[in-house]
Amino acid sequence: MRATFMYGAGDVRIEQIPDPALQEPTDALVRVVRSCVCGSDLHPYHTMPASSEPSPMGHEFVGVVEDVGSQVATLRRGDFVIAPFAWSDGTCEFCRQGLQTSCLHGGFWARDGIGGGQAEAVRVPLADGTLVKAPLAEDAEDSALLPGLLTLSDVYGTGYHAAKRAHVGRGDTVVVIGDGAVGLLAVLSAHQLGAEQIILMGRHKARTDLGREFGATDVVAERGQEGITKVRELTGGHGAAKVLEAVGHMPAYEQAIGVVRPGGVISRVGVPQYDEAPVGFASLFGPNITLTGGPAPVRAYIEDLMPGVLEGTVQPGRVFDVTMDLDEIPGAYRAMDRREALKILIRP
Amino acid sequence: MRATFMYGAGDVRIEQIPDPALQEPTDALVRVVRSCVCGSDLHPYHTMPASSEPSPMGHEFVGVVEDVGSQVATLRRGDFVIAPFAWSDGTCEFCRQGLQTSCLHGGFWARDGIGGGQAEAVRVPLADGTLVKAPLAEDAEDSALLPGLLTLSDVYGTGYHAAKRAHVGRGDTVVVIGDGAVGLLAVLSAHQLGAEQIILMGRHKARTDLGREFGATDVVAERGQEGITKVRELTGGHGAAKVLEAVGHMPAYEQAIGVVRPGGVISRVGVPQYDEAPVGFASLFGPNITLTGGPAPVRAYIEDLMPGVLEGTVQPGRVFDVTMDLDEIPGAYRAMDRREALKILIRP
Repeated sequence: MRATFMYGAGDVRIEQIPDPALQEPTDALVRVVRSCVCGSDLHPYHTMPASSEPSPMGHEFVGVVEDVGSQVATLRRGDFVIAPFAWSDGTCEFCRQGLQTSCLHGGFWARDGIGGGQAEAVRVPLADGTLVKAPLAEDAEDSALLPGLLTLSDVYGTGYHAAKRAHVGRGDTVVVIGDGAVGLLAVLSAHQLGAEQIILMGRHKARTDLGREFGATDVVAERGQEGITKVRELTGGHGAAKVLEAVGHMPAYEQAIGVVRPGGVISRVGVPQYDEAPVGFASLFGPNITLTGGPAPVRAYIEDLMPGVLEGTVQPGRVFDVTMDLDEIPGAYRAMDRREALKILIRP
Repeated sequence: MRATFMYGAGDVRIEQIPDPALQEPTDALVRVVRSCVCGSDLHPYHTMPASSEPSPMGHEFVGVVEDVGSQVATLRRGDFVIAPFAWSDGTCEFCRQGLQTSCLHGGFWARDGIGGGQAEAVRVPLADGTLVKAPLAEDAEDSALLPGLLTLSDVYGTGYHAAKRAHVGRGDTVVVIGDGAVGLLAVLSAHQLGAEQIILMGRHKARTDLGREFGATDVVAERGQEGITKVRELTGGHGAAKVLEAVGHMPAYEQAIGVVRPGGVISRVGVPQYDEAPVGFASLFGPNITLTGGPAPVRAYIEDLMPGVLEGTVQPGRVFDVTMDLDEIPGAYRAMDRREALKILIRP
């Protein structure tokens, strides 16, 4: 089959590799129907040393079960499934409390001998715990619901996690930093959870326009001190109690500290591209700011979020603005890197 | 009157200065009945450059109202009062939500023209908002309740804040880092809030013994990796969901990251002696750790905590193991610095 590998910064290739096969009795084989490129895939696309081993790529996919191991109880050939970006057993103490990204026996796609989702098929470990069935017929491979269901693999659940970790609720004022797919779906999630004022910080008009449709009440295109001043003007002078950081770079962290209100929460879901950051008296401690967030246990949210997608009351799939074939994936990375596309849907 | 000033690291002096006087109609004058030296006073005691302006010292005191300004409505001469370590108007939006340390018109003792509590008297700004009356007669100046009431100025409320910010509740497993007065009162607070297992990390036996009396179920004297291993052994391998950090130095922060369970909370109340700290994928982000805490709005907690002190159901005043006169205060700093005393009560 064909699968995507990154050989170093800017170097993404499609290769022919052997088809995956069941290895453990708890495995399932999934034929990928749709996958996509993630904003977080751009981090290694910028920084990966050319000398490294090539990495399989992709951690978001939906598809059809082709085969299951002897111990898989809840899935069968032909089921349409959503794969969260982390695989998990569903039974350990962390899974039971809804933190599947810390599953004691789980892991992430595209490492430790597990393939990536930007491929024709994937061996899924711990399939009963990992995969969630969606009520689509096996032949529904061109369903208009596919983009929305695919966002449940990562970006919708990740935006939702940002909002949940910040305890966004009715009447809240929320700032969302970043107009990528996760930022926009953090807007949608905050809106869904009842936030009254949602200020989206971003400067790509097509994206922030979509953000407004998702529920943003204000857009602040300015960055740095200018952006902070603007947000403070919009929030009665003191910033917002809930700040959702969906970028991962240090300027976004600093922006978050600038716009958060004393006693407020910064909830990060952008994968941090830094190890250390200001947390002392002048930043977090003095004003009693809470810093929270992390990789979203999207598995915990799929059942809650899927009905809205199926009914069409929310349309998170609108973050996909371009569709390409798997063979075109090097161009997909390029287009996302140049911000010519917001998020690219991949058809194997 | 006599008041305490720090001239530089290790250089604390008692000086004669003019008696404070009412300046604003919202002021009260308070004659100090008891004050004390705080663990956080030791930070400048170690680091203050000798070239600086001398600083007035002390931010914890209880005393008797001697005079009030014309706009003070709730206090009168003779009232026995507790002064929180931050003064606040009690009416701004932050005070109303219980974050008096971020009061829009408030501030802290011993700066900006306001004296310190290690003195014979203090001018208290915004007295209606700041001071809390305690039901002691004016002549109760040797009451056995004084040490307990004085802990409401800072250390008890601060330990309680650590526990509240971590949402400590019934059945929880809690690690408290630090066996100073705040750490011990974080133990007491966690116990009060229903924690089931309370692991105190500290290595001064007299202190950890008091910690056990306050409710610690386990004491871990080891530090670094050894301490982390020990805590993990005591917590089923994965650490505690709630970690209260009552020290403020980087090794305590690192310890907190080592002993917190994925999805857990680190609640800091030790004033951080660092600006930057690890917050990236390997420390906070990957395991979805929440970092919270800050200077405690003790004003918000006094009414809740005072009844237990008055009734004797809790005895936070036991953190005072030595009493000295104001004139002896240079020796009090020395003794606390050398850990010859846990916390020293000062009698003017």
